[in-house]
Amino acid sequence: MTQNIYDDGGFFENYSQLPRSLRGLDGAPEWPALRALLPPLQGARVLDLGCGFGWLCRWAVEQGAASVLGVDVSERMLERARGETSSPAVRYERADLESFAPAAGEFDLVYSSLAFHYLVDLAGVLTRAGAALKPGGMLVCSVEHPIMTAPRHQGWASDASGLPTWPVGGYLDEGPRVTDWLAQGVVKQHRMLGSYLNLLIAAGLELRHVEEWGPSPEQVAAEPDWAKERERPPFLLLAARRSR
Amino acid sequence: MTQNIYDDGGFFENYSQLPRSLRGLDGAPEWPALRALLPPLQGARVLDLGCGFGWLCRWAVEQGAASVLGVDVSERMLERARGETSSPAVRYERADLESFAPAAGEFDLVYSSLAFHYLVDLAGVLTRAGAALKPGGMLVCSVEHPIMTAPRHQGWASDASGLPTWPVGGYLDEGPRVTDWLAQGVVKQHRMLGSYLNLLIAAGLELRHVEEWGPSPEQVAAEPDWAKERERPPFLLLAARRSR
Repeated sequence: MTQNIYDDGGFFENYSQLPRSLRGLDGAPEWPALRALLPPLQGARVLDLGCGFGWLCRWAVEQGAASVLGVDVSERMLERARGETSSPAVRYERADLESFAPAAGEFDLVYSSLAFHYLVDLAGVLTRAGAALKPGGMLVCSVEHPIMTAPRHQGWASDASGLPTWPVGGYLDEGPRVTDWLAQGVVKQHRMLGSYLNLLIAAGLELRHVEEWGPSPEQVAAEPDWAKERERPPFLLLAARRSR
Repeated sequence: MTQNIYDDGGFFENYSQLPRSLRGLDGAPEWPALRALLPPLQGARVLDLGCGFGWLCRWAVEQGAASVLGVDVSERMLERARGETSSPAVRYERADLESFAPAAGEFDLVYSSLAFHYLVDLAGVLTRAGAALKPGGMLVCSVEHPIMTAPRHQGWASDASGLPTWPVGGYLDEGPRVTDWLAQGVVKQHRMLGSYLNLLIAAGLELRHVEEWGPSPEQVAAEPDWAKERERPPFLLLAARRSR
């Protein structure tokens, strides 16, 4: 079973102060790129795996979604999500994604933002996610980029010209990586980029777009601190379609 | 037009001494993984883009291929390839891959080993390669991995524990990288991994397998010097199918 770090008190307090927690989707710099991968949501049935505070669930209703199911393992996050959601089209369910079994052939969109890199049995989750889609339905997700998750000791260094570099090691050795992000001892699973893609293909999905996201030059102009995020991509955004 | 470094005298002499030049396919450690991606070749029509000394062309005939067309820009490499090829099923053609236009709907396999990362107009090459396949035909290729090609100054460093790391920088800034591999001033084109995949999708191909190749633990046991190649993948192997 995956570590439920989001119900750790210190982690939750720190996570709640991030721009993406305070400002929602617009506080996440990768959101415009991720949104561009979504299918039209008018009348759609949506499943959000790792819905957190429910920002995407509420946004999907604004876009005309017929129903939205948000699933998360964190009781604290769901409590806030329920408190901020008034639409009857949204339902939240507490579940460990590794054992959650959505109804088959039900959804036009399965969405997941920055959750899959915590999961040990991602193959099982993606198989069930693929089966949960209607034929023609889309899976759109983001994860921490494998270049980010690979190193045993993650952090920036400098090259000979003083430019920031991200030393990569351990890339081929998939498995847990322990970092001190927002709290000590947060466990994420490093997977090769190819492994994410091959798992989607094995789940019966056809890859439609693979984006190694970093801030655009325009975003860097507005937020100069983000410049180094163009040296290596922090996030991987994927879109795949159920074709059969 | 792409630099034709293989006809540079010094480069050619050095390249000719590599294990993959002296021993052919079996001298390339990634060959078993690349071979595993190939379709059955009995009766197949094969196109090799960047065929070099023609090792794959001759091997394909041994596997029962009906005809093989090897294309390369290097006159020196083709001269040796012709001298070592006796089968009338193999034909070699000298052409710049960026302007070469294969016949449409002709091939069961389009193959390319470590050539695409030299090309400026890869979109055009892949569009023509996709069109050259019969429906159901496969494109199988290898390139230098984008983690390899990204840095402005490529080379190994060490992490806090003394383990080798490959400092990544410049990953999102696609374009030429000048290295001194076998000769000075060799120009390769850095592309994001996602860009390779999105170009294949745009060419009408369906991704079937994405392998970030590094030596297996067994290969490292036999060749201990290769251990650091598991810290970051040297090659990217791709298989895609023309579905329509």
